Order: sequence, then C-alpha cells, then structure tokens
Amino acid sequence: MMTITAAVLTECGKPLEIIENIAIPELGRGQVLVKIHYTGVCHSQLMEATGARGEDRYLPHMLGHEATATVVDIGPDVSTVLPGDKVVLGWLKGTGIDAGGCVYESPIGKINAGPVTTFSNYSVVSENRCYSLPPQIGLQEGVLFGCALPTGMGMVQNQLSLSSEHSVGIMGLGGIGMSALIAAVNCGARLIVAIDTNDDKLALARHIGAHITLNPTSESLAESIQQANQGELLDFIVEAAGSCRTIESAFSLIHRQHGKCVFASHPKHGDKIHLDPFELICGKTIEGSWGGGANPLTLLNQAANNKQSLAPLRHLLSDAYPLSQINQALEDLANQKVVRAIIKLDGNEDE
Amino acid sequence: MMTITAAVLTECGKPLEIIENIAIPELGRGQVLVKIHYTGVCHSQLMEATGARGEDRYLPHMLGHEATATVVDIGPDVSTVLPGDKVVLGWLKGTGIDAGGCVYESPIGKINAGPVTTFSNYSVVSENRCYSLPPQIGLQEGVLFGCALPTGMGMVQNQLSLSSEHSVGIMGLGGIGMSALIAAVNCGARLIVAIDTNDDKLALARHIGAHITLNPTSESLAESIQQANQGELLDFIVEAAGSCRTIESAFSLIHRQHGKCVFASHPKHGDKIHLDPFELICGKTIEGSWGGGANPLTLLNQAANNKQSLAPLRHLLSDAYPLSQINQALEDLANQKVVRAIIKLDGNEDE
Repeated sequence: MMTITAAVLTECGKPLEIIENIAIPELGRGQVLVKIHYTGVCHSQLMEATGARGEDRYLPHMLGHEATATVVDIGPDVSTVLPGDKVVLGWLKGTGIDAGGCVYESPIGKINAGPVTTFSNYSVVSENRCYSLPPQIGLQEGVLFGCALPTGMGMVQNQLSLSSEHSVGIMGLGGIGMSALIAAVNCGARLIVAIDTNDDKLALARHIGAHITLNPTSESLAESIQQANQGELLDFIVEAAGSCRTIESAFSLIHRQHGKCVFASHPKHGDKIHLDPFELICGKTIEGSWGGGANPLTLLNQAANNKQSLAPLRHLLSDAYPLSQINQALEDLANQKVVRAIIKLDGNEDE
Repeated sequence: MMTITAAVLTECGKPLEIIENIAIPELGRGQVLVKIHYTGVCHSQLMEATGARGEDRYLPHMLGHEATATVVDIGPDVSTVLPGDKVVLGWLKGTGIDAGGCVYESPIGKINAGPVTTFSNYSVVSENRCYSLPPQIGLQEGVLFGCALPTGMGMVQNQLSLSSEHSVGIMGLGGIGMSALIAAVNCGARLIVAIDTNDDKLALARHIGAHITLNPTSESLAESIQQANQGELLDFIVEAAGSCRTIESAFSLIHRQHGKCVFASHPKHGDKIHLDPFELICGKTIEGSWGGGANPLTLLNQAANNKQSLAPLRHLLSDAYPLSQINQALEDLANQKVVRAIIKLDGNEDE
C-alpha cells in the first residue's frame, strides 16, 4: 500500500521530523492526490518552523507551499486536472474548487495540513492550488511558479507602473527579490538598484541585469542611490528582505513626492512598521502585496510563450537536497547560502 | 503711513504677541499686498505655537494660512489678481508666481513669514496663494476654502472612489473632518459614520448628514460599526483627528481585504504610525494627503455654482474673535469648544 513520507513540524523551534508510513486519506470533493517531484523551501517555512509566526495551533503540521508534481488521483468534482497531468503547486488560489486542508493518520497520530503542503513524496491538495505546468517549463524551474515568481514578478507587473523612465530598487535578493529583479529587467527600467547584505547574491543580481548593487553593511544606501540617480531617490522600491526594519529602510529610499514602496515580506508576528506620517502626507506611498496580486496560471503561460525570460531562473535554485537533508536546506537558507533551496523528493526519476 | 498689526509667534509654548507698527516692505516679483477680513485658526497653528512641530528656526514668525482678503497692491509680474479683488488666501499652490516668503521690519526687529500668513490686518503674500473669491461666497465661509475645505473635501473627492455602495467613516470632526463629511454626504455614501470625542460635534455631524455617530470614550468603535454595517468594517475612512494613535485607530476600522484609510493629520514632530505589515499584505491601504490633492480654485468655482452645498459651512465657523483674543481662540480650538475658530480683523467694516 502506498504511504506518505513527509518532513513534519512537530514542535516550533525544533528540526522538522521525517515521518514515514503516513496514510493517504480518501479524497474528498475538490481534492487532488499528487506525487511531488521538487519543492522549494522559502522564508515562510523558516518563520513557521522557528515559531516566528506566533503559536502554531496545528502541530504536528505539514509544511511547504511551492512544488512541481504529477497528479495521481482526483476526488469528486475535480475538473481542471486529470491523473498524469504535470502541475505546479502553490499557495495562491488558481481555478477549480477551494477544498480546504486535510488531516492525515500516521504512526505519530493525526497530522494537520493546509490546502497545499509539499514537504512529502505524496500530498493531498486542493484543486485550486494546482496549476497546469506547460511542457516548456522544467520541473525544477517550475517550482518557482508556486510562490517566488508570482509574488516577485507580480509586485512589479501589477503594483508598479514601471517603465523605461523609472528608477527602481530591489531590497533583499531571495527568491521573491530575484523574481522582482527579473521583472524589472524585462520592463527596461532606466536604473535598477539591487540591495542585499550578501555579495554572492549581488554578483548574481548584476548577472541578471541590475545596473548597480549595494551592500548596506559597507555603504550608505541613500547616498549611493542619489549619486547614481542625478541626486534623486528612487521612483519605486520592492522590499523582499523580510523584516519591519528593512521595510522602513526601503521606504526611506524613495522619492519624497511620488516614491512608492511595495513589500511582500511577512515579518515576525507582533512586529510593527514605524512610519513618519509626514512622509506619507508629502506623497510617498507604501503597499503590501498578497502574492503580487498575480494569477499564477497567467504567469506560467506568459513564461511558456517566452522561453528566453526563463533563462535566469536556473540561477535562483540551489542544488537539490534530498528530503532527509531538509533541515540543512532550512539552515542554508537562513544563512543566505542559497537564494531558494530546492528539495528533490526520494524515488523520483525525473530530470 | 499704513503699517501692519499682527499676532506673532515670538517663542514656542508662549502666547502669540500682538505687534504693532510692522513696516510693509516693498513688493517683490509675484508678491501681493492684501487687507485681511477674516482668518481661520487651524490645528496646524496650534501645533506651531506650542512647538509640537519641532524647533522653529524662523522666530519671530508670522502665522496663519487661511483667510479672505482684498487685494491692495500687486508687485511686478503679478497677473492673476488686481487691486480691489476679493480673494481667498490658502497654503495650497494655485496659479501665478510662487514668490516665496518675506521678512518684515518691526519695533521688535525682523519678523519672518512664509509665502502666506494671515494673523494680521495686512499681509504680503505670494501670488499663487491668492484664489479669486466668487461673489456667491461670503467672506466668512470663504475662509474655509483656504485649508479645511480643499483638504477635507479633496480627500473624499480625489483619494477615495466613494459612491452610494460604500460605507465611510470620518474620524475627528474639526474643520477638515467636517469638510470631508460634507463631501461624503454629497457622494450619497450608503453609510456615513462620524467619530469624535465631543458630543456637540457629533450632534452637528448628524445635522450635516452622518447616519450614525460614535464617541470612542463611551463605546467600542469596531463593534458599533459592524453592528451598523452587516457585520463588516468600513470600506473607507478619513482620519482628521490629528495624532498617530487616531490614525492607527482609523486603520483598524477598515475592511481587511479592501479597506482604505486616508489621513491629512500632521501629528507631533517625531511621532510615528505603527502598522502591522500583515494587514497591508492582506489588502488594507493607507495614504497620506497633501491638502486633499485639491485645486482650491476648482473647488471655489464648484461651490459658487452650487450654493446649496455651502449651507452647512456656516455651522463650522465659530463666532468671530477679534485679533486681540487670538490666544483665546487657540485655547478654545485646543479644548474642542469650536470646530474652526475664526478671527475678524480690526477695523474691517465688512459683514
């Protein structure tokens, strides 16, 4: 009988535990059983695993929200995917039924899962978290369409009116920041400034198309930007560095009368952004982003029709870790050794 | 020889001093000499006078930024007004030359003034701070077009897409809040909630057209709003109560996915707004306002063509104080005894 092996959060602040022999539940309405090929590890899971999102009322808890997979079986009323289909799994709602989460029986008792979880060889997910994967996109690059790319590219495409006249900053060069950078390069922005504390990431950003790169540990951001931008601060900035302090720093780097700061960072539970109201009165704006306001299906189709735009994606992914090394992957992500950690599920022969 | 009598800020935290025999300087390019009829006293002057705006590097300093006046003389290149014209004076830039401020010689030495100051019987102002007063609008009501009305009505007209489908809150019922209320009533909003700690102002708000009024000292704002609004928080809120805490309170009263908070409050120097980034990620927005983004000339012409819309304005103005009582006017404004304190300049025979 087919069972699930998963990396499970059993206690906040402890390593994930590999649990075997988790039973696959009978599929409910709108649920889809998938075999997972690759999953990404993003900062959100790091926050969940360390408890920075506050109390986790769902322990033990399945994690992960971006992956590529093959559909194995479908529950009643599922109409958008069929067994054998290759799909991207992501947390943004696509089309089809919103089926909610599920509960697994296992040797350690019940394990809770949301509408999409991916740190396992098989998973039961909600239909509307499966997006058909066009054949032009590989199983590794495809992972990025589950979270980083829709959020990062979406912020630029949907929340900024970025054109060749504008200057734009990208603060924080993880998966989301790099995706925003790719979108900014595609827009042909006049000046693209990439900002991170990690020099390897800055080098990659230059390779992808950033015009200048700045490391806040060794230079004044505002001064360097004004030097490169005819004395002015930035028209736009995308913040993806993850803390309230970096959101405030990003906000300080935009033009006083018309600058716009967009962020997708979801900082530690309880942390607040501190803003000077006078800066908002003068005309600066700040906007949060719910996954870039993007439709992941649209983005997948755009990318499939423009394979060249996919070229930089390969650079964002780490070498694949096995599931047994997922805690190492989380640690390497926390220590900025990788942009986006990727896990290859055991027993998959693909790629 | 004609001289100026003015209420001057000589030291922050002290009463304004009435200084006589201030010399009228020769008019520079783009400057206009006006005889002032009425001036409003707004919260900004209270903040300046008490030092809440931070150090005042311009002491002694002329104050005031909304008034009605008659043009007495014009400097070189002034083209939009002529001697004898009735005008509104305001801090927003209209048309004509931006002439900057000026310095007066007086028995206490030099006195500094910005491009528009109004706490005096005569004043030298910048051409672009003079807006022609249509004959349909009286000299007292006209004062409100210098600051409160463009800011309050402008926030509603230019920064919210308010229609009969929407619910809207107005927090803080001073001149700006009441002006926003008038605009919300004109928009025919489905539910208008007026919020203030002063019951007299709440009664006036009901008279002007608020559907419900709430006093935060005696009831829970969120609960009362949800009761009146089918369980939902507000689509929009205009904050005009003046502090970072009231901006945060207003932000807490809007709908999590699409609510928008606009504020014109310019809180105490150094105070910050504390916002939960997750609320912004979920879709709430917050925007500051630079005088409502309004063109005061457009607003004056709209009002002149729709005299009915002016009816509520009379309620916003206090009985006129003489200039000698301006410190009493500031105190009454601080203690919420009046919505907008108005000063009648000595020796004016008008109205």
